[in-house]
Amino acid sequence: MNTNKTPHIVIIGAGFAGLETARGLANAPVRITLIDRNNHHLFQPLLYQVAIAGLLPSQIAQPVRTIFRKQKNLTFQMGEVTAVDFDEKFIKLNGSVIAFDYLVISAGARTNFFGFDALEKYGLQLKDIDTAVQTRNHLLSMFEQASHEGDAEKRKAMLTFVIVGGGPTGVETAGALSELITHVMRKDFPRLDLKDAQVILLEAGPSLIAAYPDELREATFKLLRNKKVDIRLNTNMQDFNGQRVTLGDGATIETQTLIWTAGAKAAEIIDSLGVEQASMGRVRVTPSLQLPQFPDAFVIGDAAFLVNGNGQPLPMLSTVAIQQGKAAAKNIRRLIEGNEPLPFHYKDPGLLATVGRNAAVARIFGISFSGFIAWVIWVFLHIYRIVGFRNRILVMFNWAWDYFFYDNQVRLITKE
Amino acid sequence: MNTNKTPHIVIIGAGFAGLETARGLANAPVRITLIDRNNHHLFQPLLYQVAIAGLLPSQIAQPVRTIFRKQKNLTFQMGEVTAVDFDEKFIKLNGSVIAFDYLVISAGARTNFFGFDALEKYGLQLKDIDTAVQTRNHLLSMFEQASHEGDAEKRKAMLTFVIVGGGPTGVETAGALSELITHVMRKDFPRLDLKDAQVILLEAGPSLIAAYPDELREATFKLLRNKKVDIRLNTNMQDFNGQRVTLGDGATIETQTLIWTAGAKAAEIIDSLGVEQASMGRVRVTPSLQLPQFPDAFVIGDAAFLVNGNGQPLPMLSTVAIQQGKAAAKNIRRLIEGNEPLPFHYKDPGLLATVGRNAAVARIFGISFSGFIAWVIWVFLHIYRIVGFRNRILVMFNWAWDYFFYDNQVRLITKE
Repeated sequence: MNTNKTPHIVIIGAGFAGLETARGLANAPVRITLIDRNNHHLFQPLLYQVAIAGLLPSQIAQPVRTIFRKQKNLTFQMGEVTAVDFDEKFIKLNGSVIAFDYLVISAGARTNFFGFDALEKYGLQLKDIDTAVQTRNHLLSMFEQASHEGDAEKRKAMLTFVIVGGGPTGVETAGALSELITHVMRKDFPRLDLKDAQVILLEAGPSLIAAYPDELREATFKLLRNKKVDIRLNTNMQDFNGQRVTLGDGATIETQTLIWTAGAKAAEIIDSLGVEQASMGRVRVTPSLQLPQFPDAFVIGDAAFLVNGNGQPLPMLSTVAIQQGKAAAKNIRRLIEGNEPLPFHYKDPGLLATVGRNAAVARIFGISFSGFIAWVIWVFLHIYRIVGFRNRILVMFNWAWDYFFYDNQVRLITKE
Repeated sequence: MNTNKTPHIVIIGAGFAGLETARGLANAPVRITLIDRNNHHLFQPLLYQVAIAGLLPSQIAQPVRTIFRKQKNLTFQMGEVTAVDFDEKFIKLNGSVIAFDYLVISAGARTNFFGFDALEKYGLQLKDIDTAVQTRNHLLSMFEQASHEGDAEKRKAMLTFVIVGGGPTGVETAGALSELITHVMRKDFPRLDLKDAQVILLEAGPSLIAAYPDELREATFKLLRNKKVDIRLNTNMQDFNGQRVTLGDGATIETQTLIWTAGAKAAEIIDSLGVEQASMGRVRVTPSLQLPQFPDAFVIGDAAFLVNGNGQPLPMLSTVAIQQGKAAAKNIRRLIEGNEPLPFHYKDPGLLATVGRNAAVARIFGISFSGFIAWVIWVFLHIYRIVGFRNRILVMFNWAWDYFFYDNQVRLITKE
């Protein structure tokens, strides 16, 4: 192996951005080392479905080794990168030093609790498979506990579910949870009065899915209200102690369940890089996605801060990550060939959010849809995008089943 | 509701025995409370498939509430029974007192480490979903760690897998794990020399699956040896410290993996009942499956000790549990109607164990099969027996896929 002359590309993170970079270099004359702390790639946009018992973890996760089985220039390493040295051009992983010619940091984001220690302790989140399964176990356990609780007040508190954050994840989770109660739990718990159950969505700002156009925001609000979600706009969460949520105006909600979807920040490793960070801890990159001082290093995806043509920072979205992954691969090829890297331009492919069964909102090619048509678009787009042929069939089968039988088959409580 | 006159049956445990009792009383004029510490019934004979990443937990587990959705005389309660009072006829559950007219204890078995503290700490087991997933995570992590281990000795130790116990579970796990290595890991880890990998099966006695007829024991031995399992008969395990197994003769095996399948004993709650226990902590019952001093209480399944027609205690098998569940339901009906309960007779439906893909041994209607035909029988019988229509399709699909593509799709490491 002529390893001395073949450029070595190290990619940190096998999310959408890292995966796309690796794929974009499939036929390039390079060696690639792809690193992730998990052994799988996660289709994060559907993580909330795991939390509400609609999908199995393995239906939205795929082992990275399986994805790249046929890409011979790639090696996968599972582990945590503990140091990055941009000057000497190496990283540390699992106790070894790995030298790179080009580095791609696509480490993604983690939940931002904005310093609320209590939230970190008592709140639920949807960040990876473990936290989603933990959320599922908690939700299902609340119904089990409520089923033998004699005290009406306590029972009501057990069946009160608070979701914080009116972005796409909060909206999707609230809609899906409300449907789980109405259609599935009603059958599983025939002796439980589910009129006591309520899903409350708290949003600090004046509207849901604030980044979306007016008509979609309104449609989302209506669809969600029809699903009996108690939407509270302009409402701040002040505190949560595991038993009670305190709101900004001093009002309280008795509940053991708070799902926090209201914030994200760049992954932990980013803080240790010693590079300039913008809001949410994201790394400021050049228009060509490189680190200003270290042009051999790229930062892409949720961890990168880049201002769009309209003056706004690019959002933390899978569509951005995928496009930046492609761009980074292309720019690495150009650098190897001795060409200048090209600036990244984000092409907005449209917006899409689901509000439950039969209901979604979408904006594609400048046209806004809502309701059933948007939902069908959503289903097909998501199934198509899920990595892996077998998973695609299984997810389709699961959804078809749920659709016809109003059932959620994954209601296992596996750990407390 | 005329609850004062309707007899109340409390069933502890939703395994095969408890499930069958509840079903047998579906149309009886009784109220049933079925209790389990988990919210799901587990198809335990396939648990080893979860451990070797062949099946998903949800493919072999079904929420109890879903199973009994249509049985109107049954209520499910998730929780741990903390006390049983046979004289006053009540149990304690989740802080409440529940009175019963008839009690069925079908609490099952747990792993028996025979007092080996080190085993309990470092050994892996296959008892429920959590331990099976833990085993899967550990096995897959060993391959990941080996892939970046430079030291050949350490790498070999990581790829050495010891299974203790030559019963059906040990045999099935050894065969399946060996195939996982040969057919799947070889593709996932092209740079790892899997000649270093070895599966070692330790059995203290002179033969594998000792309860089976001679020709099947020999066939199993051959099939397993063909799959390159290192079978060591008449070999005692002396100690395991998480890094090294010490054998009875002082020899050692360097390994971080020991899967313990060599013992079971009655569930924890049995020890607190204050009734007469036989070997493995099982409760001595009358031929009609009742407690000698408390004829309103039945003990069935793995937790019951009853001597067969041939003078041997009935084994801890799902087929015994199912037949005893049916018999208990019938006897409760007879007691309610004022009739004498009938003695239980076990009808041996045959024996069946799989040794991996294309290979199994079976004895049905007095005829012994081994190899491919036995495997086909095994596949169909198991799929047929798995609770739930959807799961049956998914399991069949998974197996067909694995069969044609030599793939195991569930290789997720979800927690360390």
